[in-house]
Amino acid sequence: MTDIALIEAAARRLSGHVRRTPLLNAPLLDRLAGRRIFVKAECLQVTGSFKARGGWSAVSALSPDARARGVIAYSSGNHAQGVAYAAAAHGAPCVILMPSNAPAVKIANTRAYGAEVVLYDRATEDRDALGARLAEGRELTLIKPYDDPQVIAGQGTVGLEIAEQVAEAGVTAADVLVCCGGGGLSSGVALSLEVHAPRLRVRTAEPQDFDDMARSLISGTRERNASTTGSICDAILTPSPGELTFPILSRLAGPGAVVTDDRALQAMALAFMHLRIVLEPGGAVALAAALFADDLPDTVIAVASGGNVDPETFALALDCFA
Amino acid sequence: MTDIALIEAAARRLSGHVRRTPLLNAPLLDRLAGRRIFVKAECLQVTGSFKARGGWSAVSALSPDARARGVIAYSSGNHAQGVAYAAAAHGAPCVILMPSNAPAVKIANTRAYGAEVVLYDRATEDRDALGARLAEGRELTLIKPYDDPQVIAGQGTVGLEIAEQVAEAGVTAADVLVCCGGGGLSSGVALSLEVHAPRLRVRTAEPQDFDDMARSLISGTRERNASTTGSICDAILTPSPGELTFPILSRLAGPGAVVTDDRALQAMALAFMHLRIVLEPGGAVALAAALFADDLPDTVIAVASGGNVDPETFALALDCFA
Repeated sequence: MTDIALIEAAARRLSGHVRRTPLLNAPLLDRLAGRRIFVKAECLQVTGSFKARGGWSAVSALSPDARARGVIAYSSGNHAQGVAYAAAAHGAPCVILMPSNAPAVKIANTRAYGAEVVLYDRATEDRDALGARLAEGRELTLIKPYDDPQVIAGQGTVGLEIAEQVAEAGVTAADVLVCCGGGGLSSGVALSLEVHAPRLRVRTAEPQDFDDMARSLISGTRERNASTTGSICDAILTPSPGELTFPILSRLAGPGAVVTDDRALQAMALAFMHLRIVLEPGGAVALAAALFADDLPDTVIAVASGGNVDPETFALALDCFA
Repeated sequence: MTDIALIEAAARRLSGHVRRTPLLNAPLLDRLAGRRIFVKAECLQVTGSFKARGGWSAVSALSPDARARGVIAYSSGNHAQGVAYAAAAHGAPCVILMPSNAPAVKIANTRAYGAEVVLYDRATEDRDALGARLAEGRELTLIKPYDDPQVIAGQGTVGLEIAEQVAEAGVTAADVLVCCGGGGLSSGVALSLEVHAPRLRVRTAEPQDFDDMARSLISGTRERNASTTGSICDAILTPSPGELTFPILSRLAGPGAVVTDDRALQAMALAFMHLRIVLEPGGAVALAAALFADDLPDTVIAVASGGNVDPETFALALDCFA
């Protein structure tokens, strides 16, 4: 199980290999939103998303034998790049199972990190079953995107940094909005804040119609999405909350926020204009909630979880100014 | 005169008000370039460029009386925002003289910081004379964009941070490419590195046909550009090297690099893709040189000096992928 000790141990392994990302803010953005917004810019992370943390945490926790056999991961792209980066740095062979409709940039970058990429059809194939079969045939260790204690621990290091950075900024209480797919990042951050900044409350942010976590937090049981395609927020379209992540969030998280694809694009546009960072749609939903939700306190931290976006999709965000 | 003591004093005044920007890198960018590239991301600075440093340094160095009367600056936009931001925080009235063809976003943002904006025609009016006239009439202190010892001192704090950050990264020798208009940033950084990282050499980067500094460094005298319009790199189209900045660079800088507008756009595109930061053309020429010049050492630091760019211009950079 992931606890604060596992997160702090992961932070020590990550040090020097994964970036301590800045906590950004902009006076003009605050004015627009009518509240103070801090953005934890994980898009500036080594592989363009927080997933480098979980990948490094998991690969660095393997035994030398397991590392030598190699790892496998299934991912819409960001977890893929995180694991591929960590595996290459540890000299571990790496197979990545990616949906064939993932952004081209994510597929290309995953290959560039040295991983072997296997494509599958997200609508018709079961990635878990396919991944398990590949892992078994080659004795690879499967690194799941969120339901893995070491992955959650790695993502939780974002929370350790937020706790330090808000203290430097003089913030004592706030909602911390986190882009949420399976809940690895949200649950890890929640565990860190519980200990190091207990007056900061995690809230998940999800795309409309893919709000399994928000609904699950209300019902108290793991709800499923009707589909895992149909939003531009490709990075966070997961079938349901994780088995390990949901109990953590059920205990620690506030109500989930839900945003439309249009709001995600607007958040990308405002991040471009006022923070000069590049966000992908799924990495912008927390900022979208911070900007546009109406049930928020005066100070909000939004975790901008990733920035691996095709130029065509980014152009859609720029069209918000037209 | 600016010296290391003035820069270190500025650093103390800036602390807590101006951001210590990250030094970014990306394995895939290094592979493309065939060398190791670190990017000092001043586009993530509070006002979207390093100019917040010089603005804060100059305004905070004024006497209480001078502050109360107010300040004036002339600028294509980034210096404007830097001074406006600093003036507002110090409660000083602020008039900004901007070319009427400056990017709309820069004009809008300067107004949003609370400054009074006066527009002039860059092709037909002499901004120095106009600025001096306005300053005199209202007893405002003119804060020049580069030929001011406190402004150079503020920009020089970028060099203090680079010296610390490259040491953390284990870099001992490198060329430091700096986007160059009048030379305020380049000369400040050169003074800091001379003391704190003497094996790092500053080199200016300029747009083709606006390479007054590169030519001046060769001839040993301050050369002029034929025009101050005609490149997309609006932020760094100045008539000639500064009176204060040129002697510093003449003593400390290596040969100047010159890049085309197309290369600047390509650098913006690659920064979007691999670093997930937003650069403006004039803020990307150092990175363009780092990526495409052929007379560079194995390790290069590029100062990405600003990210205040209109969506239309950014779309031109994204077209590089088409």
